[in-house]
Amino acid sequence: MHEHSDQSAAADHGVVISGPDKKENCGVVGIYGHPNATDLCVLAMHALQHRGQESAGIAVSNGEDIRGHVGMGLVSDVFPKEQQQKMTTWGDTAIGHVRYSTAGSSNIANAQPMLVEYSLGQMALAHNGNLVNAMLLRDEYEAHGHIFKGTSDTEVIIHLLAKPTHISKPDTFAHVCRHLQGSFCLLLLTPEKIEAARDARGIRPLCIGRFANGGYIIASETCALDIVDAELVREVEPGEIVTIDKNGLHSRYYEQPGTVKPAHCIFEQVYFANPSSMVFGENVHNVRLAMGRQLAREAGVDADIVVPVPNCATCAAQGYAQESGIPYDRGFTVSHYAGRSFIEPEQPMRDLAVKMKLNVIREVVEGKRVIVIEDSIVRGTTTRGKMSALRRAGAKEIHLRVASPPIKNPCFYGIDFPSKKELIANERSVEEIAKYLGIDSLHYISLEGMLSCVSKPADHYCNACWSGKYPISVDEIVTRYSQDRFQKKLFE
Amino acid sequence: MHEHSDQSAAADHGVVISGPDKKENCGVVGIYGHPNATDLCVLAMHALQHRGQESAGIAVSNGEDIRGHVGMGLVSDVFPKEQQQKMTTWGDTAIGHVRYSTAGSSNIANAQPMLVEYSLGQMALAHNGNLVNAMLLRDEYEAHGHIFKGTSDTEVIIHLLAKPTHISKPDTFAHVCRHLQGSFCLLLLTPEKIEAARDARGIRPLCIGRFANGGYIIASETCALDIVDAELVREVEPGEIVTIDKNGLHSRYYEQPGTVKPAHCIFEQVYFANPSSMVFGENVHNVRLAMGRQLAREAGVDADIVVPVPNCATCAAQGYAQESGIPYDRGFTVSHYAGRSFIEPEQPMRDLAVKMKLNVIREVVEGKRVIVIEDSIVRGTTTRGKMSALRRAGAKEIHLRVASPPIKNPCFYGIDFPSKKELIANERSVEEIAKYLGIDSLHYISLEGMLSCVSKPADHYCNACWSGKYPISVDEIVTRYSQDRFQKKLFE
Amino acid sequence: MHEHSDQSAAADHGVVISGPDKKENCGVVGIYGHPNATDLCVLAMHALQHRGQESAGIAVSNGEDIRGHVGMGLVSDVFPKEQQQKMTTWGDTAIGHVRYSTAGSSNIANAQPMLVEYSLGQMALAHNGNLVNAMLLRDEYEAHGHIFKGTSDTEVIIHLLAKPTHISKPDTFAHVCRHLQGSFCLLLLTPEKIEAARDARGIRPLCIGRFANGGYIIASETCALDIVDAELVREVEPGEIVTIDKNGLHSRYYEQPGTVKPAHCIFEQVYFANPSSMVFGENVHNVRLAMGRQLAREAGVDADIVVPVPNCATCAAQGYAQESGIPYDRGFTVSHYAGRSFIEPEQPMRDLAVKMKLNVIREVVEGKRVIVIEDSIVRGTTTRGKMSALRRAGAKEIHLRVASPPIKNPCFYGIDFPSKKELIANERSVEEIAKYLGIDSLHYISLEGMLSCVSKPADHYCNACWSGKYPISVDEIVTRYSQDRFQKKLFE
Amino acid sequence: MHEHSDQSAAADHGVVISGPDKKENCGVVGIYGHPNATDLCVLAMHALQHRGQESAGIAVSNGEDIRGHVGMGLVSDVFPKEQQQKMTTWGDTAIGHVRYSTAGSSNIANAQPMLVEYSLGQMALAHNGNLVNAMLLRDEYEAHGHIFKGTSDTEVIIHLLAKPTHISKPDTFAHVCRHLQGSFCLLLLTPEKIEAARDARGIRPLCIGRFANGGYIIASETCALDIVDAELVREVEPGEIVTIDKNGLHSRYYEQPGTVKPAHCIFEQVYFANPSSMVFGENVHNVRLAMGRQLAREAGVDADIVVPVPNCATCAAQGYAQESGIPYDRGFTVSHYAGRSFIEPEQPMRDLAVKMKLNVIREVVEGKRVIVIEDSIVRGTTTRGKMSALRRAGAKEIHLRVASPPIKNPCFYGIDFPSKKELIANERSVEEIAKYLGIDSLHYISLEGMLSCVSKPADHYCNACWSGKYPISVDEIVTRYSQDRFQKKLFE
Repeated sequence: MHEHSDQSAAADHGVVISGPDKKENCGVVGIYGHPNATDLCVLAMHALQHRGQESAGIAVSNGEDIRGHVGMGLVSDVFPKEQQQKMTTWGDTAIGHVRYSTAGSSNIANAQPMLVEYSLGQMALAHNGNLVNAMLLRDEYEAHGHIFKGTSDTEVIIHLLAKPTHISKPDTFAHVCRHLQGSFCLLLLTPEKIEAARDARGIRPLCIGRFANGGYIIASETCALDIVDAELVREVEPGEIVTIDKNGLHSRYYEQPGTVKPAHCIFEQVYFANPSSMVFGENVHNVRLAMGRQLAREAGVDADIVVPVPNCATCAAQGYAQESGIPYDRGFTVSHYAGRSFIEPEQPMRDLAVKMKLNVIREVVEGKRVIVIEDSIVRGTTTRGKMSALRRAGAKEIHLRVASPPIKNPCFYGIDFPSKKELIANERSVEEIAKYLGIDSLHYISLEGMLSCVSKPADHYCNACWSGKYPISVDEIVTRYSQDRFQKKLFE
Repeated sequence: MHEHSDQSAAADHGVVISGPDKKENCGVVGIYGHPNATDLCVLAMHALQHRGQESAGIAVSNGEDIRGHVGMGLVSDVFPKEQQQKMTTWGDTAIGHVRYSTAGSSNIANAQPMLVEYSLGQMALAHNGNLVNAMLLRDEYEAHGHIFKGTSDTEVIIHLLAKPTHISKPDTFAHVCRHLQGSFCLLLLTPEKIEAARDARGIRPLCIGRFANGGYIIASETCALDIVDAELVREVEPGEIVTIDKNGLHSRYYEQPGTVKPAHCIFEQVYFANPSSMVFGENVHNVRLAMGRQLAREAGVDADIVVPVPNCATCAAQGYAQESGIPYDRGFTVSHYAGRSFIEPEQPMRDLAVKMKLNVIREVVEGKRVIVIEDSIVRGTTTRGKMSALRRAGAKEIHLRVASPPIKNPCFYGIDFPSKKELIANERSVEEIAKYLGIDSLHYISLEGMLSCVSKPADHYCNACWSGKYPISVDEIVTRYSQDRFQKKLFE
Repeated sequence: MHEHSDQSAAADHGVVISGPDKKENCGVVGIYGHPNATDLCVLAMHALQHRGQESAGIAVSNGEDIRGHVGMGLVSDVFPKEQQQKMTTWGDTAIGHVRYSTAGSSNIANAQPMLVEYSLGQMALAHNGNLVNAMLLRDEYEAHGHIFKGTSDTEVIIHLLAKPTHISKPDTFAHVCRHLQGSFCLLLLTPEKIEAARDARGIRPLCIGRFANGGYIIASETCALDIVDAELVREVEPGEIVTIDKNGLHSRYYEQPGTVKPAHCIFEQVYFANPSSMVFGENVHNVRLAMGRQLAREAGVDADIVVPVPNCATCAAQGYAQESGIPYDRGFTVSHYAGRSFIEPEQPMRDLAVKMKLNVIREVVEGKRVIVIEDSIVRGTTTRGKMSALRRAGAKEIHLRVASPPIKNPCFYGIDFPSKKELIANERSVEEIAKYLGIDSLHYISLEGMLSCVSKPADHYCNACWSGKYPISVDEIVTRYSQDRFQKKLFE
Repeated sequence: MHEHSDQSAAADHGVVISGPDKKENCGVVGIYGHPNATDLCVLAMHALQHRGQESAGIAVSNGEDIRGHVGMGLVSDVFPKEQQQKMTTWGDTAIGHVRYSTAGSSNIANAQPMLVEYSLGQMALAHNGNLVNAMLLRDEYEAHGHIFKGTSDTEVIIHLLAKPTHISKPDTFAHVCRHLQGSFCLLLLTPEKIEAARDARGIRPLCIGRFANGGYIIASETCALDIVDAELVREVEPGEIVTIDKNGLHSRYYEQPGTVKPAHCIFEQVYFANPSSMVFGENVHNVRLAMGRQLAREAGVDADIVVPVPNCATCAAQGYAQESGIPYDRGFTVSHYAGRSFIEPEQPMRDLAVKMKLNVIREVVEGKRVIVIEDSIVRGTTTRGKMSALRRAGAKEIHLRVASPPIKNPCFYGIDFPSKKELIANERSVEEIAKYLGIDSLHYISLEGMLSCVSKPADHYCNACWSGKYPISVDEIVTRYSQDRFQKKLFE
């Protein structure tokens, strides 16, 4: 258990790491060798939009030069038709990025892909993941006279890639990847090729697809392949670097397979990824369905209906209903328009935010004993709002069943959890939480139960947020450094 | 059968009426006597956003003066926080409107509420519905020297309200309502009061709610009441005018109850209204569930799974699955971000539009015999795209079941159907449609079956789009006039 | 002296007429029969931009249909390249309008050209001027059931043009023009032609130009002809209606020449029009030069330099310097960027506004006896700021010479003067004004002296703002009606 | 003559240096210790707007943290009222920057001030000038692994300031300034102070002002002091570094006075600076006036009027008229609205651009022998358009007199001249140019004559653009490196 050292102490100091500019679960896509590279890139980014809504960007190469465009907002905001048309002429190879929207980090300096000039010419980099040693590396680079314009890990990686002693290595990219600790899926665009790398534990997903015309696509999820009619080839393997250039697709490993145990983020399955995607070798929807069934086996209760909290728990609720034989019904409607105007960071009215998005169907729940399925509980505040709305609508009993175990620790690899003390399950018992939520009963799926729903061995998944056992060491020093940084906002 | 004359001949000429600027299913809301009238109005408009995304507007009264603000786009576009803050000071009474987004009608001159000055001072009007005699009235007014800046029915009603011979009547509003033929829910704001009127057939829904502080809300659907914590009082009755002023809520009838048979638009139940809303006295979700059950009874078929076409058919699919005992599953995922950038009128790539919004979950349907539930089929083109996507994903058999009967006639009362010849069910048999869609079997619910799922007598609903029997006479003259108008776009 | 009745009593009540939405000095242009009608229209509007910066609009006809586009802001804001490109295909005939920017009237409902449908089809109208009987007509129309969306005179004229009893006249446009009291230059676009009318007193300028290709242009000033390389044909005469259609240019008079004495607004010469334009038959720059010379003859003083207040007084200062032999120098620099961000109506810091636009060249004025030439003084506040800046920069003596007589009365024909009591010359003597301004001496040009600088007979010019003798009767009733209206802002 | 080596050979290769992203004449301002630092900074930037219209930015310090905001466009675009209000709370010390607008360089990555984090914390830098060794330094840094996001010299200086070996020096800023070759006025903001440095030759202007409250302002021109009511203290001296912190203003020299001969850019006097500013110890307007007088003495000609090409030649034309006794008159009017919509880089219609901005006053020039005063001729194309417009307006004779000598060499220190071969005076004689311009005679002021109009010794000014003698060596290597760079556009 060398890897899974208990980092709960570290995590206690780790609050700041989950600060405004450190929430880097994003979506990446690369298109190689297609005359409509920009259009396809935009489409794929639309399909990955659920992975990030803060900023969007594309860098395009024509084989000699790279040009880019980034902006704050949704893909449709940043890439209107005119912008797409202009960029179509820029080349047949492109990488794109959508960035997660979190409080306070609306910083164009962090938008990706990051496009720079360095000693070998141009490069553009798109990154999904979170490095645990980014601050350390950043400090080291600053000590050597480097400057930073934003606060993202990606800028750190760029500096590593440009470092002369790294450039002098036979395989710079592999060399740099070995330096990075944490989760990362990287797409590196140089004028003549795309290179894709995935961290040795395979924490975040990354897959390869092929176009009928011979071109390639690499993307965070397979749903991006579907939208552009690309055929799934396979995943990029943990520790692998895939290169696509005029000679086609090549593979090498910067970390030999088998050296490091995988640590897939099961939260991709639980709520982050699109249900239609294949992630870590299996379909997200089916995994969620199985989790719902398992939950029913673990935490059955006599009731009238099973209702999901939309959208993520819909699949699990189906599974629960099927296994339990209790009818599935729709207890909430969702609004998809409310969106960005109200759910602002400074908005104190969380209850209102809940109401803007969800409305209870009173006629479904009134007078009923309701089993509610939720995918996870983080702070508990919005869940409380939903439970209270059910109660006001006349639900006679509320039995909440959660398709993932209690989250007790922050994530250092890209999922946007708050600090430890804000996690409701951190210091409260299940009973205390149930009381706080004002419900009749509460059960979480067991860790073992959840892991029985995925096909790979249980120890191939990261379970740090539940167990506190982090697959990659998070040193005190990291957290200490972090505390002094990023409290201040840079460019607004 | 005086009312339900067969208007299929008229409908043949009626193509133009469903032209760009005649699609007026919208959402309306009025808030009387609340210090946060503007904020509540904005919230309620968010809840009604599904009824219209083209434009949004609010007119506010402080008891003496009315001021307004309208704009193109979503509520969140037109009313950002700063705009709301500014308007909060304008008064404690407001009416709001969201307008349906259709091709080519992006015309600010049609945005509502329409605010004007006339001989008695100011008035603002918000309208949901569609008049069949609007063109006739418009021509008549133009003949008397009136001018029109936009192409909406609402502007016509304004002219009626300002007409001296109408003003001289003891009850101008009632007098004018009796002139209007078609569907309408009207909110009329004058400096000191809100008046709400609903057409004598009750084609579109309109309900009344009360705030804890004594103020009132009137809105198209009850989901708008939920979001602002208002208590449902009752519906505005067909033929009723409700007035809210400093003396509270008063009622009168411009058309005595019982004089005219109701003609509720059952399409509000089938797909237009929010599932959480009470419409025509019953919950939308429950009605759809019942329609799904009825469909299963009418058109059972041996299969492996039941999947809905999201979002509207979700409830019906649940009902079908429950009744048939065949497992419900999720065959498609929906993207809620794609939105407005791609689904442009001039976008020829309808297949792409489908793909932007829906993605098949291959693992759910592959190798399966799939029953697909759809709420309705209009042109058939997007349905075909969805069926073809299912087939490509490996569905072994596709059995499409539709929760409403074949649409054979255009709607003159506000639902945005295309012209008769574009309606796929108009001249094709069910078999021909199935062939066109490339599926194994197709069944529509029967008209009787559908009507058995709602609680009011069958003849209290309009069934013109299925039967061609229009509750309100649509004269030749109407359609003839219409043909020469609105071919041209006015202000862009 | 039938016409020039003393209206100073009326003017006392006339305060409200010069309220926020009644400042209608604008620029108009029409292009007939040119493949690049829209582009030329935009260019001409750029050349006329000094006549109005609040809103801009164009209506285009292809011979059958008219389409329009209007917006708030400068021509370059409302008509970016993409918009122009789109509109180029709309037709070969267009009319355009720029509207004056004044406090509080930022109302899109008033933007022109106004495009409407009425009984005969479509018409679009662009108007420069100000009607004195607009309120009266408006009330009359409202009494007949008409509605108004904005507060402009133009909307009133539209109603007159659409009135059935007017339409039944052999020459509707001429008939309507005879109803209008006040100043007006009208461009009326119907699908197949442009008609231009000028009020019988010729208060505002309007000229005709011809393109090499046979097409025509009609514009407020000749500088609009210059920019599009059109050749000046002649002015539209007072009381004349010019029609341009496929048969070329035709003329008729709705008011026979000679019936009414002209009342050209000499303020067009003094400060409103572009110095390069021909207005009322002579060049603006030359008129201003002559006024400067006359001022020198009337009000000489021993001094070191003559400096203009930029920009309008530059020509007059040259004239003064030439006549007096005292050297002309540049005492102020002007900033052309400050523009709209600071000079907002609600901006209380008028001193700052002055400083944003003008900066004294200390080295020019320090220790000097300075003659300052100003074109006019209205409220006196900004003039005071300029004088004080000169003093702070070290001017030893300041002798202000004004190239127009003291303004004592509001203008009812389109110049944006404030109410009578805000006019500094209304109740103060010249000595009192000089004291208020903190200067050593002050002289205004005499009315006779000023009129000696223009070539037409003195009684062919309106001098109401100086003399209070209004060429067109302004009845009590007009002002009384006005007072109750337009206090409230409509759409914002 | 060690310094003034003949660089005409270098200049032959120098074309690329004047490429899209190398035109760095800008305006800078710093405000220290004033509660309204942001507002004053914005005002001062308005006053300096003539020095750059492409982008604007401000960085603000509260003594501990620096925050910034930059954007493309005018100061009024980037800093609307709301933005200013927000920033007012950020601190009492600020630096601001306006950047020159040139074709193709619309790159937000180059907007200033540049705000970064480095080993010592935060710093923000604003730069006016142009380094000749920027490429060399950049290459060197890239070779050491540094990356660059934009193409500006400023980013290079930032890297120098962050370099550990520089940081270890007793005075890093002085050390770095000694490394820089070319023109520079730098404002460096660290949390607790502003430092200002000017290159040892004093090529660009920079002055110090004091507020009544004890705070300080440093700005490119004195006109920025005037607008905020600051009192001029003195210039920052060539080779001087001025520090403003809580202990007040301190001075030191990184290059001892007298070591290097000054090389003031006389083009600041000729056309770049505001006429009201004090530059290099004397008033710009007065210098221009003297140049006009000198021009009259050198190149008299019998004629009827003297007219300036607005705006820059207005002062010189006055001087010419005074000296020659030939009347000054206004031959052109200027439009200040046209602005940015038409004068786009890709706009091929230069003639149109001229016409959008200038219009001839036909009545002034018709039939006249006209002496036209221009401040300088660069490519000759726009001058040709102006001369041709004069001719079309009927000028009988056109005698062009230019208040600066023929420009034969590109500028490496910040003035936006094109490449050598595009300079019309490079390979053409004065007669050939006159013929190209289609005029009757052409005379440039002599270099000696021009230098007699300024008060400092002739060899204290740079005359490279006329003489080819560059005060700072421009090595072959610089130009060679430059050629391979910046052909490509980066982020758009």
